[in-house]
Amino acid sequence: MRNIKIVIEYEGTHYHGWQRQSDDITIEGVLEEKLGIITGGKVTLIGSGRTDAGVHALNQVANFKTHSGIGEPNLLRAINSMIPCDIVVKSLVEVDETFHARYDVKRKAYIYKILNRPIRSALYNNYSWHIYGELDIDAMRKAALTLKGRHDFSSFCAVNSDTLNYVRTIIDVDFTVSESGMIIFSIEADGFLRYMVRNILGTLVDVGRGKIDSNLFAGIFNAKDRTKAAITAPPQGLFLRDVFY
Amino acid sequence: MRNIKIVIEYEGTHYHGWQRQSDDITIEGVLEEKLGIITGGKVTLIGSGRTDAGVHALNQVANFKTHSGIGEPNLLRAINSMIPCDIVVKSLVEVDETFHARYDVKRKAYIYKILNRPIRSALYNNYSWHIYGELDIDAMRKAALTLKGRHDFSSFCAVNSDTLNYVRTIIDVDFTVSESGMIIFSIEADGFLRYMVRNILGTLVDVGRGKIDSNLFAGIFNAKDRTKAAITAPPQGLFLRDVFY
Repeated sequence: MRNIKIVIEYEGTHYHGWQRQSDDITIEGVLEEKLGIITGGKVTLIGSGRTDAGVHALNQVANFKTHSGIGEPNLLRAINSMIPCDIVVKSLVEVDETFHARYDVKRKAYIYKILNRPIRSALYNNYSWHIYGELDIDAMRKAALTLKGRHDFSSFCAVNSDTLNYVRTIIDVDFTVSESGMIIFSIEADGFLRYMVRNILGTLVDVGRGKIDSNLFAGIFNAKDRTKAAITAPPQGLFLRDVFY
Repeated sequence: MRNIKIVIEYEGTHYHGWQRQSDDITIEGVLEEKLGIITGGKVTLIGSGRTDAGVHALNQVANFKTHSGIGEPNLLRAINSMIPCDIVVKSLVEVDETFHARYDVKRKAYIYKILNRPIRSALYNNYSWHIYGELDIDAMRKAALTLKGRHDFSSFCAVNSDTLNYVRTIIDVDFTVSESGMIIFSIEADGFLRYMVRNILGTLVDVGRGKIDSNLFAGIFNAKDRTKAAITAPPQGLFLRDVFY
C-alpha cells in the first residue's frame, strides 16, 4: 500500500477540533470522508496530534495508506476541490511505508496571539485572545524563559488527561510584538500535553497583569499540580505552526 | 450641537461597503441606526470617504452632530454593545464644531495584502488576494516607486467615476513581505480616486507576473486612460489603514 503524507492548513472556528467524532464535524472527519470518495476506499488518517475546537493550524501533518494509483498532483487537486474553503491541503507526497505522523514527531511549534488594547477587535475575534488591561510583556517573557529545558509540566496539563508521563522539553519560547500590535507567543517543544500551551498562556497572562510575580510563577510550575495554575487561555488565539520529523 | 468624531475598525466581508444604501446593509447604515437609537434623534454620519463592498478598515474616521448630552465613555460603550462583532468603534471624542471628516482629510493610507503561493489559503481568504504564480516583488516595487509624486491618475480611476480632477499626490508607496510570507503593499496619498488602489495593484501584479515591463507600466500611467491598465484587484485584500487630518 502507498503511504501518503499531507500538510494541512485550517481555520478551526467552525469545527469540533481535529479528531474524528461520530456526531460532530471535525477536520479529520471531513478529510477522511472526501479522501475515501476520491480513492474509492475507506481512509484512516493518522494526525500528528489533536487540536481542540477553535484552534487553528498553519501546518498540521497527517498520513494515510491507500491502494489508489492516482498520482500526487491529481490527488492534491481532487481533495482541495472537495473540502470547504476553511481547510486546505498545502502539500501531498508519497513517503516511505514506515512514516507515522504521530509516532515520528520530533518537535512541534505553536504560536498564540494576544490582542492587548482597551477596545475589542472587529477583524481578529476568531484569531486572537483580546485582553483589555495593559500587559507587562517583559515580565511575561522573563517568566516564560524559566519554562525552557526538560521539566515536569503537570501544573499545565488538563486535569482529565490520561497521560502517564508529564515530562517535556521546551526548546524555545518567546514573546514578540507584530507590526499591527499583536502580541505573539511562540513555543517549541519535543511534545505537548493536553491544553499545555493554553494553560501556560493563561498563567503567563496573570504574570503580565501583575497578579502573579516571577517567584509565584516558579512555585506554580514546581507544584506539579494543575489546580495551582490560572485559567486556560481561549482556543481562538492558538495556531499549530509546524510539526518537525 | 455637539460634534463627535469616531474611529472605526471593520471587516467588510459581510457589508455592501461603507456608504448608506436604502436596500443593503452597510457599515455607515448600521452605525447611523444604532447611534440614532442611543442619542434619541436622527444621526447623519460624515465618513472620510467610501470603502467598497468587501474592503476592510483599521481606522476609518467619521463625525456626526448630536443634541444628546450622554458623555463620551458612555456613548462609546453604548454603540459598541449594539453593533455586530465585525464592526467596532475604537475611539469617540467630542471635537470642534468645524471638524468635517471628509473635507478636512489631509492624507490617507491603505495597505493591500497578497498571498503568493501555489495553494489557496484556509485562513486568509477574506483578507488577501491569492495569486498562484510567482511574483517578482522587486519589479513591482520599482514600478510602484514611479507613482510617487504629483500625477494625473486617470489610468487608475474607475470609468464610471464622476470626478473632475484626477490629479493626486502619492507621498509614499512600498512592498514588504511579512513574517508569515504575506506581500504587503502600502500606499499613502493626499487623496484617492474611486478604485485607485485596486486598479494600481491589478496593474502592478501584471508587472510582477512579467506580463508588463517597467516601460509599458510608465506608458499605461502616462496614457491617462483607464482602458490601458489591467484588471481591478479584488476588494478583500484592501484595508483603509489611517486617515490623517
